[in-house]
Amino acid sequence: MALENDLLLRVLRGEKVERPPIWLMRQAGRILPQYRRVRASLSGFIELVTTPDKVAEVTIQPVDELGVDAAIIFSDILVIPEAMGLPYEMVEKKGPYFPKVLKNRADIDALRSGDVVANELQYVYDGIKLTKIGLNNRVPLIGFAGCPFTLFCYMIEGQGSKTFSKAKAFLYRNPDDAHVLLEKITKSVIAYLHKKIDAGVDVIQLFDSWAGILDEVTYKQFCIPYINEITKSIQQRVPVIIFSKGAWFSYKDINNIGSNAIGVDWNTPVKYIRSVVGHDKVLQGNLDPCVLYSDKETIKNTTIDMMNAFGRNHIVNLGHGVYPDTPLDGVKCFVDTVKGYEY
Amino acid sequence: MALENDLLLRVLRGEKVERPPIWLMRQAGRILPQYRRVRASLSGFIELVTTPDKVAEVTIQPVDELGVDAAIIFSDILVIPEAMGLPYEMVEKKGPYFPKVLKNRADIDALRSGDVVANELQYVYDGIKLTKIGLNNRVPLIGFAGCPFTLFCYMIEGQGSKTFSKAKAFLYRNPDDAHVLLEKITKSVIAYLHKKIDAGVDVIQLFDSWAGILDEVTYKQFCIPYINEITKSIQQRVPVIIFSKGAWFSYKDINNIGSNAIGVDWNTPVKYIRSVVGHDKVLQGNLDPCVLYSDKETIKNTTIDMMNAFGRNHIVNLGHGVYPDTPLDGVKCFVDTVKGYEY
Repeated sequence: MALENDLLLRVLRGEKVERPPIWLMRQAGRILPQYRRVRASLSGFIELVTTPDKVAEVTIQPVDELGVDAAIIFSDILVIPEAMGLPYEMVEKKGPYFPKVLKNRADIDALRSGDVVANELQYVYDGIKLTKIGLNNRVPLIGFAGCPFTLFCYMIEGQGSKTFSKAKAFLYRNPDDAHVLLEKITKSVIAYLHKKIDAGVDVIQLFDSWAGILDEVTYKQFCIPYINEITKSIQQRVPVIIFSKGAWFSYKDINNIGSNAIGVDWNTPVKYIRSVVGHDKVLQGNLDPCVLYSDKETIKNTTIDMMNAFGRNHIVNLGHGVYPDTPLDGVKCFVDTVKGYEY
Repeated sequence: MALENDLLLRVLRGEKVERPPIWLMRQAGRILPQYRRVRASLSGFIELVTTPDKVAEVTIQPVDELGVDAAIIFSDILVIPEAMGLPYEMVEKKGPYFPKVLKNRADIDALRSGDVVANELQYVYDGIKLTKIGLNNRVPLIGFAGCPFTLFCYMIEGQGSKTFSKAKAFLYRNPDDAHVLLEKITKSVIAYLHKKIDAGVDVIQLFDSWAGILDEVTYKQFCIPYINEITKSIQQRVPVIIFSKGAWFSYKDINNIGSNAIGVDWNTPVKYIRSVVGHDKVLQGNLDPCVLYSDKETIKNTTIDMMNAFGRNHIVNLGHGVYPDTPLDGVKCFVDTVKGYEY
């Protein structure tokens, strides 16, 4: 079935469009009162993630409420470590916590990988199917996964960290074991994403949320090959967006992977990224989420300046997930500014 | 009196030297058992910071124990907000906490600024004088301050944060008030640094620890002018090193300030920073602190590769403060590798 609004897909195919599409990372979330009501009715974050009809409900909310050009399935990158054998908890105001972490090669060898991991996550595919029904072909649906290194960080460190020094120390001390683990994660992510596509997602975004703690040499060694492997496998079927937050030092290597688009954080000057990847590459981003705390005039002007700077081949987004306490009016002003823009 | 080891000062003056000098950010700290003993004998971090003979003792420890080419006075960037009128506590394992924060222009107007702030910090100058006596002209002594924006972050946010979204929202919502506050901080930092120089420090390092949460436009607007003002005032008397962590997008603007050296974080490829600032600029950095968790062979090879990449006009350091749980043997291997290197 053709989509009513296929702006995002047309940009990702390299077509010339009338204005850039817009969606926001974390658009399905606490910024919406509708989301907070659903969330309050459940025992916690993990119940929401694992309940397909609730997933569909909150995924569709920002399409109805904000008028964004794409939905992104409500889920968590940590369902993969969990399905591999490392369950996690979501601690209120603190974030994810893994009671068990990986300490050595035996722990890594004991993990599940590939299809058996993907088969554990039926609730995700069910959520996608229900979402597709609810969206009724209005906008494309984005599926996503964490990149292997970001998942590796949580599996070694067990929780968020300012430095992820345990995870990084593991890379330096046990590079061979690190590669074994990264490959097992990669195989699981690939199997998982194929099943998400089977279930109906139209686009895949890969999130390397902790890319910015590495450097060019380490990123090339421990991250690029695995993102490349995933992209190559998935891209046969749907367009792929790679968002390696903070990995400005590796934009050239990321560009060489040849994904359909690259996500850009707000620290990156548009001129810089365009000088590295050229004007034909589709880029996604990169407004500072804090701009949305500002007055409408500032939001509007900053958004227009950003669109002018990127030029064509651009998907508007923030340079990071929208912060939970962002005023809804600011978000709406951002979306409306983009929808009123013309190339 | 001439210094026995003036390698750091000679590099900062642009002289050709036999090898790069080395010191480590946070070298006076938990990596040393001698430090941990002093710290355990006191009620807490703030007692240590405010007790001049203890300050001198821990400042000198890494010179004795590691053989580094410079000492850096043990202190905290937050003594300035405190002296301006916002006292802080250091919460074990959590970091600084300010019971009172700035909410509006009246709060900003009520703060002290300039000489009266500097006059509150006699314990710092006393610590410097005792340290100079203890060092007995062996190596130069570095003094430091936080850059205005980094101090601003704590004064608005009240504690560490992953996003500092309150502080950034303040910039966007109240730019004029933000500038008033930044200027009051600047005047205080300048008065403070002049008194540190009077007390005997040989070099000043300016830390903009949270620079990396901004972008090129905002950094140029809210940070560069104040760092420039401080540098220009201080540089008449001693060399100045600017370390704006994470502000890769602003290296050109930072370079234009014309400080004696620029600190470089570990994310920054040496080729990139050299392409921006040229080969004559003195650069300081930038080993990933996590490399020091590795085996000696890896530490040695990575350090040598880094020195080769920087070439001359280089001060060896990490790209961040050394992590508290770093093995002392790793730190010593790092220092010894540099001391055995020849251009």
